[in-house]
Amino acid sequence: MTLAAAQIDTGDTAWLLAATALVLLMTPGLALFYGGMVRTKSVLNMLMMSFVSIALVTVVWLAAGYSLAFGPDAGGGLIGTLEHAGMAGLGPDSVQGTVPTLLFATFQLTFAIITAALISGAIADRAKFGAWLIFVPLWALLVYVPVAHWVWGPDGWILSSLGALDFAGGLPVEITSGASGLALCLVLGPRLGFKKDAMRPHNLPMVMLGAGLLWFGWFGFNAGSALGANGLAAAAFLNTLTAGCTGLLGWLFVEQKRDGHPTTLGAASGAVAGLVAITPSCGSVSLLGALVVGLAAGVVCSYAVGWKFKLNYDDSLDVVGVHLVGGVIGTLLIGVFAVESMTGGPEGLLYGGGLAQLGKQLVAVLAVGAYAFLMSYGIAKLLDRTLGFRADEEHEHTGLDLTVHAETAYDHGVLGHGAPVGASSVSSAQKVKPQA
Amino acid sequence: MTLAAAQIDTGDTAWLLAATALVLLMTPGLALFYGGMVRTKSVLNMLMMSFVSIALVTVVWLAAGYSLAFGPDAGGGLIGTLEHAGMAGLGPDSVQGTVPTLLFATFQLTFAIITAALISGAIADRAKFGAWLIFVPLWALLVYVPVAHWVWGPDGWILSSLGALDFAGGLPVEITSGASGLALCLVLGPRLGFKKDAMRPHNLPMVMLGAGLLWFGWFGFNAGSALGANGLAAAAFLNTLTAGCTGLLGWLFVEQKRDGHPTTLGAASGAVAGLVAITPSCGSVSLLGALVVGLAAGVVCSYAVGWKFKLNYDDSLDVVGVHLVGGVIGTLLIGVFAVESMTGGPEGLLYGGGLAQLGKQLVAVLAVGAYAFLMSYGIAKLLDRTLGFRADEEHEHTGLDLTVHAETAYDHGVLGHGAPVGASSVSSAQKVKPQA
Amino acid sequence: MTLAAAQIDTGDTAWLLAATALVLLMTPGLALFYGGMVRTKSVLNMLMMSFVSIALVTVVWLAAGYSLAFGPDAGGGLIGTLEHAGMAGLGPDSVQGTVPTLLFATFQLTFAIITAALISGAIADRAKFGAWLIFVPLWALLVYVPVAHWVWGPDGWILSSLGALDFAGGLPVEITSGASGLALCLVLGPRLGFKKDAMRPHNLPMVMLGAGLLWFGWFGFNAGSALGANGLAAAAFLNTLTAGCTGLLGWLFVEQKRDGHPTTLGAASGAVAGLVAITPSCGSVSLLGALVVGLAAGVVCSYAVGWKFKLNYDDSLDVVGVHLVGGVIGTLLIGVFAVESMTGGPEGLLYGGGLAQLGKQLVAVLAVGAYAFLMSYGIAKLLDRTLGFRADEEHEHTGLDLTVHAETAYDHGVLGHGAPVGASSVSSAQKVKPQA
Repeated sequence: MTLAAAQIDTGDTAWLLAATALVLLMTPGLALFYGGMVRTKSVLNMLMMSFVSIALVTVVWLAAGYSLAFGPDAGGGLIGTLEHAGMAGLGPDSVQGTVPTLLFATFQLTFAIITAALISGAIADRAKFGAWLIFVPLWALLVYVPVAHWVWGPDGWILSSLGALDFAGGLPVEITSGASGLALCLVLGPRLGFKKDAMRPHNLPMVMLGAGLLWFGWFGFNAGSALGANGLAAAAFLNTLTAGCTGLLGWLFVEQKRDGHPTTLGAASGAVAGLVAITPSCGSVSLLGALVVGLAAGVVCSYAVGWKFKLNYDDSLDVVGVHLVGGVIGTLLIGVFAVESMTGGPEGLLYGGGLAQLGKQLVAVLAVGAYAFLMSYGIAKLLDRTLGFRADEEHEHTGLDLTVHAETAYDHGVLGHGAPVGASSVSSAQKVKPQA
Repeated sequence: MTLAAAQIDTGDTAWLLAATALVLLMTPGLALFYGGMVRTKSVLNMLMMSFVSIALVTVVWLAAGYSLAFGPDAGGGLIGTLEHAGMAGLGPDSVQGTVPTLLFATFQLTFAIITAALISGAIADRAKFGAWLIFVPLWALLVYVPVAHWVWGPDGWILSSLGALDFAGGLPVEITSGASGLALCLVLGPRLGFKKDAMRPHNLPMVMLGAGLLWFGWFGFNAGSALGANGLAAAAFLNTLTAGCTGLLGWLFVEQKRDGHPTTLGAASGAVAGLVAITPSCGSVSLLGALVVGLAAGVVCSYAVGWKFKLNYDDSLDVVGVHLVGGVIGTLLIGVFAVESMTGGPEGLLYGGGLAQLGKQLVAVLAVGAYAFLMSYGIAKLLDRTLGFRADEEHEHTGLDLTVHAETAYDHGVLGHGAPVGASSVSSAQKVKPQA
Repeated sequence: MTLAAAQIDTGDTAWLLAATALVLLMTPGLALFYGGMVRTKSVLNMLMMSFVSIALVTVVWLAAGYSLAFGPDAGGGLIGTLEHAGMAGLGPDSVQGTVPTLLFATFQLTFAIITAALISGAIADRAKFGAWLIFVPLWALLVYVPVAHWVWGPDGWILSSLGALDFAGGLPVEITSGASGLALCLVLGPRLGFKKDAMRPHNLPMVMLGAGLLWFGWFGFNAGSALGANGLAAAAFLNTLTAGCTGLLGWLFVEQKRDGHPTTLGAASGAVAGLVAITPSCGSVSLLGALVVGLAAGVVCSYAVGWKFKLNYDDSLDVVGVHLVGGVIGTLLIGVFAVESMTGGPEGLLYGGGLAQLGKQLVAVLAVGAYAFLMSYGIAKLLDRTLGFRADEEHEHTGLDLTVHAETAYDHGVLGHGAPVGASSVSSAQKVKPQA
């Protein structure tokens, strides 16, 4: 049968269209989640790092990234070819599985976007914006794209040769962003005042709004990864909701016991930790597995976010503590909770599968974590030596919003609820001089 | 034909996946809607009551709630059995109608979640957080689950025996949350300063954002209740939009006439009132019916929210005035505006059906309203006598954000637009002591 | 075959249901986008102008607008008949193409809503609210509806006779809103303090949130315009993402070169400019075309928003500079970048189609632009002469939030981060006197 259009399933396509939009909302959601957590003087910079990631990764993906990640394998399962560079050979009639190829490519693109944006949380308040604009495309091509090929590309070695499982991105998204975040915060060094100043979130309702949008989008992320509207998508959806919930409960439980107060920031962080951990595993574990995966992530990550103070790396918004640690937990626990009714084969330790799958998962975690850390460290170091990656001390002290973007986030003026801000917040349009 | 997977319609499944995500966004939307309406000192507590409802109701639902509500009837149409407790016997291949059973169960779960969260509006600013954590699971099991079974469960008495109609939750969601909210605000008593202090919304754009997200999610709520992508879903969708619009116009019209000012809070409240009222009726009334249902709700509820001042119950954010009153209006008007082309049978008074359907609707309203009020009153009273449900006076005066969660919502520091807040807002992560 | 229901494709319907909800979220998104850009004293008025547009346009659409726009042509391709006024003859079983007719009608309605709301940006801070309530329904009937019929209605002259292409609304939405906005800001005149006071955005994170929601909804807007879940929807989706990205990059590039600072407002504006320009063209141009369309819009619009200062029209939030200019760019560039694989026929200049299509696009642009400008100018002038369209000077000076809506957007009180606001923000519910 040669009629390509006849192979499309409109229901599968409908869900993947909606899911792709949902994942794209996650990056603005992340921008708010991060933006609410920083101080007033660098909110806008935080938002900008996410928004430009959307634009930069998209351009790189269309030019070469998609082809290198999902094009035919160039050999050894390490990287794809440039056959579809510039999306060559792909049109509205191209079909991949039961959906249009352009839709599959766009869905995958959205994963690359948010992974880049996630990294920015590790270097809040202190990165040169220009360096970030160069880091993102390099990182997308040299880190995200190869790892995506290993895990999901045709004949990628992690899935095909090793046999490790990753349904929606524990390896390419969570572990990669977390390990890269660690590398970057080591290269840039801690913020001025790290461990001395309070650096409280300037707007916690904004953090909760961001968390709500992230959670909403995550259903597209995880249940969309079934690439169709079917029972597996439904199971992945429910697992995603479940793990977010037990992550939230686990984190709050620790806070109550340890600090005496369940916090809003803890609720948001716990939900995200659970969602991170269920990302690789939502399509392979049982419902019991999802409960445990989320709970484990909530509890462990609530401690892991404190490591930075002991070990002196300023992972400012907890990319390492939540995404790296949560991603590792979720990817490994596939080896424990995988069930045949979900995976179509491999089973975890708890369901009689022995230690085999757990071992494969561990190899994949180590390989991806090491690769992402080392490559990102190298790229960041190179940029730091050449352009400089760390903002000037004075810029950082004053805040990047004003010094880099010539704006301030809020301006309530004389009729608002406080004194007017003296800062020269000038929008680009307004800066055009009126009839000089 | 015994191949379960073959029974799934991918289009119906695609819409229900999207609709389920939409409904889940409603609870964060509600959190912002409520959060914007309270004073700065208890925003976060308001947000937290909604967010923990997501987690608590999910766990209860998976453990037993789904089975008790939607499992085979245990007798008399009063409650389901525990056959599917822990989601036993349900996997990715299970099918319900034309969609995966796990998806149907998740969609229904999202209704239980938001209903619990809705109640929190009646007790803003003054509830013990620990008591809320116990109230929610008890309420979900003892109030929501039985009512859901009566209305939508297999052989539930309200649909099967009585023959009352409720497309998307006037009874289990709106009337139940409203009657339960009334019970709780009576048990807890009014806020300190009720009827004396202004207690203005601290952030009206946040209220409007919440209203926008609620409206968006409501299309999943109502049109998703068709459980498929079909003409009935389309009609329910349009009815939902229509009633939200006439609710908004009705409320603003009253405000303009009565107070001389159409307010933002009135626009948001009117839209929500219209949406509440069309929830039970969106799948059974004509377009004219939807116009009237929304308008009636907007007008009546704009007065009903004032009753609390005359009758001295502090329904702080108008759960009674909007959800109970709006829910009753919408559920009853099915008896007037139901058309055969939507219901497939029953017709309302206006379309020649006589008073029969109206009578059935009234019985259902009274039964559910009374049950929800009495049970919730009992549970709340029990908690109040044992743990205490009302926050300490000092906590309430200072604000629950600081006293319960050790946080403040906003911290604009020295570079923001006001004086630094002295309050010790400490995030959990930051509280971990740096190398003691 | 006479079984209407059998013609529905559930997958196409599922996507259009989701897409319709997405487009409806755009208006609250726009409200926030605009609301964040104005000063604290008129945020709520800005939000209200969008929210009431939802309600007013919906009522007009159901009463007559849908029928006039999409009913059978009354002759000459100029306007439809009133055959379906009040949605007569349409029920849950009616089918249009492969989707329910009521869904098609609702999807089209959402376009009319946001187009009306867009106009409000040109007259921020200074319009009489009562006049806006009358302008919107008149405008919807007299401007939007005819143009929609010309472009998309049965036998509409622009598509059928002229042969100009417009996939998702460059003509009825972007150019119409932009030309109408220009007319209105000319009738109302500039704000007090135009070109003298700074008039900075009071809340840039709110602007970014609005931009994020707009972008998210735009996928429903553009890819939904395929009216099905297919390869064309996928291509339109990817084109939409691409042009938003290059629009963002183009605007930031100009800012960096011209002003030395890439701003948040520039990023949001650039993305929107790219999205505006790709709206007409997303379903006809190649991926290269989408890249160029977005980039051109980002660059050109970043200059066009400055014209108002030179030519003295106070297009306050850049409806002309972004929607009119971006809409013209995108509609014209179809004549350059259209490819046969997308259009099913017509090709642009770059792909061997010659100048023919470009000429048709130009005629359509001029006709629609002139019609919208002149009609809107006439309606606005009429209202201004009779009721007055411009707010009282004192109201404008104090701010419309307090004078028209009796509210203030923010009230952080004594426990917030500033001094208490003295303004008498009184919610409608609270205004009901406690037991007089």
